[in-house]
Amino acid sequence: MTPDPLNRLVAQLSKLPGIGEKTAQRLAFHILRAPDDYATELVAALQEVKSKVRLCTRCFSLTEGQLCGFCTDPRRDDRVLCVVEGIADLMALEKTREFKGRYHVLHGVLSPLEGIGPEQLRIQELLVRLEDGKVEEVIVATNPDVEGEATALYLMRLLKPMGIRVTRLAQGLPMGGDLEFADQATLARALSGRREL
Amino acid sequence: MTPDPLNRLVAQLSKLPGIGEKTAQRLAFHILRAPDDYATELVAALQEVKSKVRLCTRCFSLTEGQLCGFCTDPRRDDRVLCVVEGIADLMALEKTREFKGRYHVLHGVLSPLEGIGPEQLRIQELLVRLEDGKVEEVIVATNPDVEGEATALYLMRLLKPMGIRVTRLAQGLPMGGDLEFADQATLARALSGRREL
Repeated sequence: MTPDPLNRLVAQLSKLPGIGEKTAQRLAFHILRAPDDYATELVAALQEVKSKVRLCTRCFSLTEGQLCGFCTDPRRDDRVLCVVEGIADLMALEKTREFKGRYHVLHGVLSPLEGIGPEQLRIQELLVRLEDGKVEEVIVATNPDVEGEATALYLMRLLKPMGIRVTRLAQGLPMGGDLEFADQATLARALSGRREL
Repeated sequence: MTPDPLNRLVAQLSKLPGIGEKTAQRLAFHILRAPDDYATELVAALQEVKSKVRLCTRCFSLTEGQLCGFCTDPRRDDRVLCVVEGIADLMALEKTREFKGRYHVLHGVLSPLEGIGPEQLRIQELLVRLEDGKVEEVIVATNPDVEGEATALYLMRLLKPMGIRVTRLAQGLPMGGDLEFADQATLARALSGRREL
């Protein structure tokens, strides 16, 4: 009984991550009820993002031009390179304002079960970037899960022989976390990685 | 450092109900990464819904034509009219497959604090629909909250003098609900509305 165009919009919105059918329906109603301007602006933003935003040819983060702002900024440190799984990880790190080196986005992690090997990631391009010997340290900031750890191990074996220092983000208790409720693995890591005061 | 078109898309998506900035960012990344087809189809669905879907001129639910499927279906009962706040409520009721009468969508509830009086709702149009005397019962299916109850009371006072039976959805314990954890108001309603077995 619902109009077909509405069903089609709900179907398209349902394809977004974390959006179920009921949420998609609520969003579609909102779009229908909202002033026409909103739909027009949303459509324009969608079209613009797909036509103008592409991957930086050096670090594979997002850019409108050839190279991204991270790669062209002369104030950033060429000697430290942070390798991340995806753009969202890069942005999370950037928000800390603690890291002033360059980035490299793998666009995934090694996952044999899903058929993702080194060729599917931007690893070859990473090796090319490291060829000139300017980079002294590579921080492998993949997630602390099975695939992320495997990817970090793989990169470590690849980069160590090149004389590059390979580091990993610290693991332990999160800020404001509760020792009592921390899982065993996290607590074990926090113990083994304890620091002198 | 993020490209402007991406920021603009995130800003537009953040305007949707229940979508915060972080979720909007995740959705935007998904749209960027997805095959171009997806964005194209989403844009087409958005444009189609805004250009083709409008309100039924009789009951104010959604339709592509002049009258909606609920109003034109000859198998539905003209003697019972169900008044709802919005389209989502209509759809929830329709999914039960229990109601076979007609609908009337108010597009809101009385809310003096937000400046919504009877003129802002489709109440005048409801009265016009009731003029021919065919409708014997009006089920006021507004939400069981303060505004919904006030709207129901308002409609009751308006319709009773016209000789129309005005009913309200039953209130009580939800199916599968736990008496122990029910709030006092619900339990009180369930008690006062108890039924003979």
